[in-house]
Amino acid sequence: MKYNSVSTDIIAELKAIVGEKNVILDPEKMEAYSHDETPTAQYGRMPEVVVTPVNSAQIAEIMKLANKRLVPVTPRGAGSGLSGGAIPKFGGIVLSVEKMNRIIEIDYKNMMAVVEPGVVTNEVNELIAKEGLFFAGYPMSLESCYIGGNIAENAGGGRAVKYGVTGRYIMGLEVVLPTGEILELGGKRVKDVTGYDLKQLFIGSEGTLGVITKAIIKLLPLPKKKTDLLVLFEDVRTAIDLVPEIMTKGRVIPTSIEFMDKLSVQTSCEYLNEQLPYQQAGAMLLIEVDGNHEQQVEEDAEIIGEICYQQGALEVYVADNYTTQERVWSVRRNIAEAFMVYSPHQSLEDVVLPIAEIPNLMPYIEQISEKYGIKIPVYGHAGDGNLHLTLVKNPESTMEEWYNTEDKALREIYTVTKKLGGTISGEHGIGSKRNKYLDLACSSEEIRIMKAIKRVFDPNGIMNPGKIFPD
Amino acid sequence: MKYNSVSTDIIAELKAIVGEKNVILDPEKMEAYSHDETPTAQYGRMPEVVVTPVNSAQIAEIMKLANKRLVPVTPRGAGSGLSGGAIPKFGGIVLSVEKMNRIIEIDYKNMMAVVEPGVVTNEVNELIAKEGLFFAGYPMSLESCYIGGNIAENAGGGRAVKYGVTGRYIMGLEVVLPTGEILELGGKRVKDVTGYDLKQLFIGSEGTLGVITKAIIKLLPLPKKKTDLLVLFEDVRTAIDLVPEIMTKGRVIPTSIEFMDKLSVQTSCEYLNEQLPYQQAGAMLLIEVDGNHEQQVEEDAEIIGEICYQQGALEVYVADNYTTQERVWSVRRNIAEAFMVYSPHQSLEDVVLPIAEIPNLMPYIEQISEKYGIKIPVYGHAGDGNLHLTLVKNPESTMEEWYNTEDKALREIYTVTKKLGGTISGEHGIGSKRNKYLDLACSSEEIRIMKAIKRVFDPNGIMNPGKIFPD
Repeated sequence: MKYNSVSTDIIAELKAIVGEKNVILDPEKMEAYSHDETPTAQYGRMPEVVVTPVNSAQIAEIMKLANKRLVPVTPRGAGSGLSGGAIPKFGGIVLSVEKMNRIIEIDYKNMMAVVEPGVVTNEVNELIAKEGLFFAGYPMSLESCYIGGNIAENAGGGRAVKYGVTGRYIMGLEVVLPTGEILELGGKRVKDVTGYDLKQLFIGSEGTLGVITKAIIKLLPLPKKKTDLLVLFEDVRTAIDLVPEIMTKGRVIPTSIEFMDKLSVQTSCEYLNEQLPYQQAGAMLLIEVDGNHEQQVEEDAEIIGEICYQQGALEVYVADNYTTQERVWSVRRNIAEAFMVYSPHQSLEDVVLPIAEIPNLMPYIEQISEKYGIKIPVYGHAGDGNLHLTLVKNPESTMEEWYNTEDKALREIYTVTKKLGGTISGEHGIGSKRNKYLDLACSSEEIRIMKAIKRVFDPNGIMNPGKIFPD
Repeated sequence: MKYNSVSTDIIAELKAIVGEKNVILDPEKMEAYSHDETPTAQYGRMPEVVVTPVNSAQIAEIMKLANKRLVPVTPRGAGSGLSGGAIPKFGGIVLSVEKMNRIIEIDYKNMMAVVEPGVVTNEVNELIAKEGLFFAGYPMSLESCYIGGNIAENAGGGRAVKYGVTGRYIMGLEVVLPTGEILELGGKRVKDVTGYDLKQLFIGSEGTLGVITKAIIKLLPLPKKKTDLLVLFEDVRTAIDLVPEIMTKGRVIPTSIEFMDKLSVQTSCEYLNEQLPYQQAGAMLLIEVDGNHEQQVEEDAEIIGEICYQQGALEVYVADNYTTQERVWSVRRNIAEAFMVYSPHQSLEDVVLPIAEIPNLMPYIEQISEKYGIKIPVYGHAGDGNLHLTLVKNPESTMEEWYNTEDKALREIYTVTKKLGGTISGEHGIGSKRNKYLDLACSSEEIRIMKAIKRVFDPNGIMNPGKIFPD
């Protein structure tokens, strides 16, 4: 696909559509739109122009223009993504939804909210908490990410064990197609089997099928009480073997079951100057339970604690007040940041596999770590099999060596993950970070069908090109 | 699309693929495959041949043959559908999965099961109950329906309030495409954002994109305790206004909230000779709560009971033992059957709309009922806005009058449902019962895209033709 560059007359047309103040051309200001949070510069690319439309009618006009002139359009939320999804890989127009940030409606009777794509995820939750409601579909970055981006990536997070991922809570979408049509998909209804589920197809499509311009999200009753357990184990297998036992023997579905290996806990504790008793442990689980009844949550925590000891846990600590909860969660949240001190050059992965296979993956990770002389801490969401193993560059190697190592190590990790029944991304997406590895995860027939579906929506291939599919 | 009929050489090839004993040609035996549970004969159509393959390799060969020879193929589960999805509208081959009925694996560690499409839904639950697990994705017909059919229709049911519908529990699918390729989609993983969600696209696609030949289903801890509340209200609005209050004020998500109007309860009670105190009530809710802790379930029931009285319920009855629970649920389950005595000619609908709009739909239904002189009992899943309003033929009218009335009344009901933010099917599907009304629910652009997606999978249009899309 050959694209045209953004000519001065296209700029003029864009200004006519969104107004002069919603067109950014200053390179200094555009720099912020040239990357996301993927921790390496290699995916960055400057846009030719950034537009900040204020409604879907403007977006429809932009898309029609771009489609006619064969200019690529990259939709962008908060730029907090981790796979390069919002980076304009072939230049062209970056379409930022930052000015479409209204919470249009909180519908208490139907327990839903209607929001624009530029709403920061946590804003909704802050607004509705006093009414005893919450929006459960959010990732770890809830304080900065936009709901539009979460939907485009089908963002996950730690609480997916109990609450599932973003897609479960998206009841309706307004989308603008690459050809400029506006579709209303779904609505304020929790069941719908009227034709193919196009709404679901947009969720997780990484901005390659159209621009999300409005969403109807489902709200849940806010749990009144939560408790965290920090559980120490001698090794990974004992820790992971416990996970299904909690749910089958204990009949409790925890909110989250986070896993940290020794390297992760140690590095994060040192970084935070935190005194968690990590020295004795080869692996840790951080288990959260929540609920509406105080006593029930306490009972659930007790049941889990007992099962932990039965299954060979070394120690179980209960954090049932906010300060202690914050301390342990802070260690979990700061792992990536802690390794930045060691080297800012990292490949932050999010492979996902059957929970019971996690212990079988670990020896491979150790081998690959040794083979390439890089650190690979493993942590993440054990309760749903989603592991953030992070390849950290050896500070002594050159950048060229690092890129070479990263590619080889990733291929090995993805291959073994696939062999164990997993896949290459559980929540971060493919984007431009993993698109060259898609064929390690999907069959050629599957990729052929995905590409053909893309063409149904985007015949000219202008919508976020260079993402998901190998170039 | 012009189809070829099933010639003798095609029969010979089918026999070579599946073996003689898996080919049915006897019209008496084929009759059972000419209809589903849609309560009217007008949708029925005899197949030209029925095949009962035993594995996906055979199905791949059948599809290749049919695709080459332009013969329609209609996949079929238990035939318990309610929209004609399994009826061979253009004749051709009916592909029944009845012999693919193995529960291949119960994977306790990953809390998943691997099943063939012909497994009766309840069989899985009976098998795993003793291990403290259950499969939550099932409709009311769980004792007869096949899991393959549930997935094809994305079947719902009463428990969707708490547990969602079938699709939430489908982690992986093996499907055979109309062109004969076999795809493995998803797997034993609860998160996955690797490319477009093709698995989800198959769920609810009514057998028009391919044949489901295997499914990986997620299992949940089986709740230890449940309680039912039967709540009487003076009118529909008071009853429905209560639904969100349970979840927002009470912070309880019930398993199900079933609604019955006076006509439904009365007819079912008379049919069953049951003595529920329906005389005083204009509407009833049947609310179920479940959970792992006995005390918590009792507390939840108490909270709901209090809210019911606060919101103007006339009476709240608690059914916390099996016998009483069965009595009240039996009234709910037998409504459709009870009206069969009045007339077997019915149009069993399942419109879905925002919960808070249910009271606004009711006056229209009364008007339409009066206008056309037909009974329209309203009952169904208030907790998710999914109403089984049932048009029952006036026994005194001719069949021609009835078909005419049915069409006009449905158009009016669908139009007002859409206006209130709803759609024409929440769980039964479009099939051949509602395909001519699809344009009342979806825009022409949406239908255009759905059709184009269908062509990606099924270029020759041989896969369950005449379903979903208007002829």
